[in-house]
Amino acid sequence: MTLTQETTLVTAADVSAAAARIAPFLRGTPLLPLPGERLWIKPENRQPTGSFKVRGAMNAVGLLAERGVEHVIAQSSGNHAQAVAYTAGRHGLRATVVLPDTAPELKVTGARRLGAEVVITPPALREVTCLALADRLGAALIHSDEFDVIAGHGGIGLEIAREATRPATILVPVCNGGLLAGVAVAAKSVDPAITVIGVEPELAADGAASFRSGHRTAWPVQQTYRTRADGLRAPVLGALAWEHIRRYVDNMLTVSEEGIAAAADLLWERLGERAEPSGAVATAAYLAHGANLPPGPVVAVLTGGNVSVPGEGTLGSAG
Amino acid sequence: MTLTQETTLVTAADVSAAAARIAPFLRGTPLLPLPGERLWIKPENRQPTGSFKVRGAMNAVGLLAERGVEHVIAQSSGNHAQAVAYTAGRHGLRATVVLPDTAPELKVTGARRLGAEVVITPPALREVTCLALADRLGAALIHSDEFDVIAGHGGIGLEIAREATRPATILVPVCNGGLLAGVAVAAKSVDPAITVIGVEPELAADGAASFRSGHRTAWPVQQTYRTRADGLRAPVLGALAWEHIRRYVDNMLTVSEEGIAAAADLLWERLGERAEPSGAVATAAYLAHGANLPPGPVVAVLTGGNVSVPGEGTLGSAG
Repeated sequence: MTLTQETTLVTAADVSAAAARIAPFLRGTPLLPLPGERLWIKPENRQPTGSFKVRGAMNAVGLLAERGVEHVIAQSSGNHAQAVAYTAGRHGLRATVVLPDTAPELKVTGARRLGAEVVITPPALREVTCLALADRLGAALIHSDEFDVIAGHGGIGLEIAREATRPATILVPVCNGGLLAGVAVAAKSVDPAITVIGVEPELAADGAASFRSGHRTAWPVQQTYRTRADGLRAPVLGALAWEHIRRYVDNMLTVSEEGIAAAADLLWERLGERAEPSGAVATAAYLAHGANLPPGPVVAVLTGGNVSVPGEGTLGSAG
Repeated sequence: MTLTQETTLVTAADVSAAAARIAPFLRGTPLLPLPGERLWIKPENRQPTGSFKVRGAMNAVGLLAERGVEHVIAQSSGNHAQAVAYTAGRHGLRATVVLPDTAPELKVTGARRLGAEVVITPPALREVTCLALADRLGAALIHSDEFDVIAGHGGIGLEIAREATRPATILVPVCNGGLLAGVAVAAKSVDPAITVIGVEPELAADGAASFRSGHRTAWPVQQTYRTRADGLRAPVLGALAWEHIRRYVDNMLTVSEEGIAAAADLLWERLGERAEPSGAVATAAYLAHGANLPPGPVVAVLTGGNVSVPGEGTLGSAG
């Protein structure tokens, strides 16, 4: 395996170290079988703040706390910011989070309730405001695509691969790809025979396009914003995530808007698990493409359950 | 008159130049007599954006536009931000405004409707966010206490002092003192016998404390934030405004919360003028202290009218 440039990839050892660092603060999630199917659900919606994002944030914040950092800052469309607010609180650090003015009021008050200072900007000023404030306040910036975050997310892959069920295939929702990257590295380190597949909405399939062409491809946000899966609208994979995905991931699948809605309904009706649209895409991929998946147990990661109130957008959770 | 340090004070000539610069964009306001009283109201709530703040902002933005600036930024509790948004629009400049998360929702939506990019922060992060963004975006910062803003506000004093009514006393709401400074310089230049008095809520009387002690005194924001007059909660007079106030202003008065509410009701019921609490304090001072004011006509400046009225728009007489 040849690295382009100087990229340092996350290894199985990094994922294990992250899992140990996180363990005192967060519990793992079980695998829930769907009766009558060869499908198991990994319910990350059960994590504090309602999404898997606390795993990566807990690792990154924990490392910064060990290094004496006292103030962290992050920007996101919602769940990453919530995760940074929550994990900073657990470690006793000051947190500032920058949210777009399109975020539902519930999310804003949620981050405030977790003790964060909330700054709200137009979507186009989110990044520059976060960078400028990090500079002025001397706060450590936590990206949703950075090394320590990917390593923290990898714990999900370790837990799945070590289950007695011996999963053959893992289906992972894809936004900027950080979750898929971490899960792929971790699962393959336990059992290289496990097939790891990323899942995107057809309407925001920039990751699948990248996977097919072999280079990181962006879609216009006017296109990616068409999907109901608000958490999966990132127009391009993260640069670091992509370096892992192109090496470790076996395939990328897409699902329809109708399929996403049907999967969310099924998760609620059959298992009582609440999935936001972004969180339901992996289950939707099983329903649409199950016959073409390798033989053996399939695991679908349910990334988050922060369901929208009518009239507001959901804030997605997938990585 | 001896200047401390190198302070350059606004003169009558500066106010006249500002008035000429503003004239193509803004009209003056009339004096409205209150029948049966020796009180006249200067209804600055009738200005675009519903407050006097457009006067100073129009002068400052106009000067920056003459110098080729393309992007301006400001922070305020509401009306200064709206004024910068409005005047930048009139001059074709990009505007970014930083508001505290305690600002009334109508001031937020008002600034957005005027075309500004709105950033919302906790009160404690307002200033640092504004400075950081000015830096990063290369935007010219417009303070609500700067020379050109005070000169622009002074036009109100010129108009009042030149009225046929020959006012004996002018009552002026005080936040950071920029309006009071400009009005005092201008009115005294027309007729030095005019008495100019600043008015504050009892709950945010840092300016009165400064006036009495002879040096600029700050109040904790925990105290100033108790008043319903959200536009007058600045914890301390502006440094530049203070240099004018201590030279040109005759007295400072305070008013109760009940008095402010009663004055706003009177302005609406007797004159049909909508006053926000901050805008009503000068009228409240007349009602509470009228018997102790010098003989002759009294003018109360009604600084703004941005109050929430269910089912109505947000910008008063905004153009």
